[in-house]
Amino acid sequence: MTESSNLLRVGAVQTNPVFGDKQANQKEIEALIHGHEADLWVMPELALTGYEFKDRKEARELAEEIPDGESTQWLHKLCRDLNCHAVIGLAERDRDEVFNSCIIVGPDGLIGAYRKLHLFDREKLRFDPGDRPLAVYDIGKARVGMMICYDWIYPEVARTLMLKGAQVIAHPTNLVMPYCQQSMRTRTLENRVFAVTANRVGREERDERVIKFTGRSQILSQLGDMLAFGDESHSSCLVAEINPAAADDKRVNPFNDLIADRRSEFYLADPERVRPGR
Amino acid sequence: MTESSNLLRVGAVQTNPVFGDKQANQKEIEALIHGHEADLWVMPELALTGYEFKDRKEARELAEEIPDGESTQWLHKLCRDLNCHAVIGLAERDRDEVFNSCIIVGPDGLIGAYRKLHLFDREKLRFDPGDRPLAVYDIGKARVGMMICYDWIYPEVARTLMLKGAQVIAHPTNLVMPYCQQSMRTRTLENRVFAVTANRVGREERDERVIKFTGRSQILSQLGDMLAFGDESHSSCLVAEINPAAADDKRVNPFNDLIADRRSEFYLADPERVRPGR
Repeated sequence: MTESSNLLRVGAVQTNPVFGDKQANQKEIEALIHGHEADLWVMPELALTGYEFKDRKEARELAEEIPDGESTQWLHKLCRDLNCHAVIGLAERDRDEVFNSCIIVGPDGLIGAYRKLHLFDREKLRFDPGDRPLAVYDIGKARVGMMICYDWIYPEVARTLMLKGAQVIAHPTNLVMPYCQQSMRTRTLENRVFAVTANRVGREERDERVIKFTGRSQILSQLGDMLAFGDESHSSCLVAEINPAAADDKRVNPFNDLIADRRSEFYLADPERVRPGR
Repeated sequence: MTESSNLLRVGAVQTNPVFGDKQANQKEIEALIHGHEADLWVMPELALTGYEFKDRKEARELAEEIPDGESTQWLHKLCRDLNCHAVIGLAERDRDEVFNSCIIVGPDGLIGAYRKLHLFDREKLRFDPGDRPLAVYDIGKARVGMMICYDWIYPEVARTLMLKGAQVIAHPTNLVMPYCQQSMRTRTLENRVFAVTANRVGREERDERVIKFTGRSQILSQLGDMLAFGDESHSSCLVAEINPAAADDKRVNPFNDLIADRRSEFYLADPERVRPGR
């Protein structure tokens, strides 16, 4: 086994979806990755439907069951054809519920799904909050954790994925706030994990509100180095080759290990009292 | 009561201490803040002794009891004379133990002390790890939490202080790694708290090792805005006027509140299994 066999080629697909047109959005992704090679592709949040659903009803109509819906099936075929793995965000329907979810799929089909725990802004009108534990999936060359967009602002999310053994965080996004990209660097530094943030570009107009998405997809090393990044306005495709095992080394120097040095007996998980001033 | 009476003027003192010369270091601080006004001054880690102790014995010799040691007494006099509060890092001796500590002092004397929970690098050869809970102190115009230097890399520290009600994090440092200043922005964003990082400049040589400190002290708003910052190499004094009550408003938008939206039932506090690959 050569050194290079342990390497993982990760890619982020930065798209500009057409609202509601799943087939056009599938085609854009296929065109963007054509000619590139990656073992693990990460695609944006709600990549095939677009973001700004009018209401819960519209989200539900465009949502699909996992794994029987067409989006999972399409991604399975893509992974089988390209012999790769992929993470994509999609609207999930499960009986009466609708989730802002993402899935990880390989050549043999669905591996796992995640339902966004921290819904952002009007997403609360359209989706149910995630109801399943954060999880890490072993895809052979790497252990991959998933989180979606606004989950970034909760350090507990990336931390939980790291403590569950994640080497790479796949992070589909539809970012509108300007802080996430920089803060994801902190997430990689504090956890010594790789992070692939696949964001979208473009804008959506709905009911006189205009939403502009910020692009700047990025692949960060476990040391916070920017390995690849996209611009603010164009669809694109970024690839980097990483050594996922490097994320298992939590040593900061000969005296410090990020996990061994934790003092969890001093960490508070819930507010100690009613917040003052409210 | 006017609006301005709720404002807090915070200052960071960026120093260049002389190793082992407490009086010279006191004089530098006095000279730096002369002519400035602040309600709360934050000074660097180990601000009066210097950083690079040869061994535990030397640390212990330069360490002092709190509040009876000369450093606490000096700071008390300063706060009484200037009618202000101050946070400073110092080596603390307590029977056989030595801690990398900081204290918060007001016109009436000592208010609280904190012993660094996460020792960095060779500090582990010189100090005992902190053994007391993170705490928040009400100084009238603000609720202040303290953390020291490398504590920044553990998101649980700032999080715990926020959950205990901190509006302002006082953060004495002796930084050598380049990431902290940027990551503190993430700490303010994810917690909606103000943060005052008081770092030192200059270098210390010891046993053929040269340590260079990175300066760039900074005062950040609860929204991650840089209100004031120092350079990489000069002693200086930064001041900003803030409204601590703004940190009680955790609303990101009409639908999101940073505390209310936490899903702590899904957050893992300890590793689930022995880390793979070690």
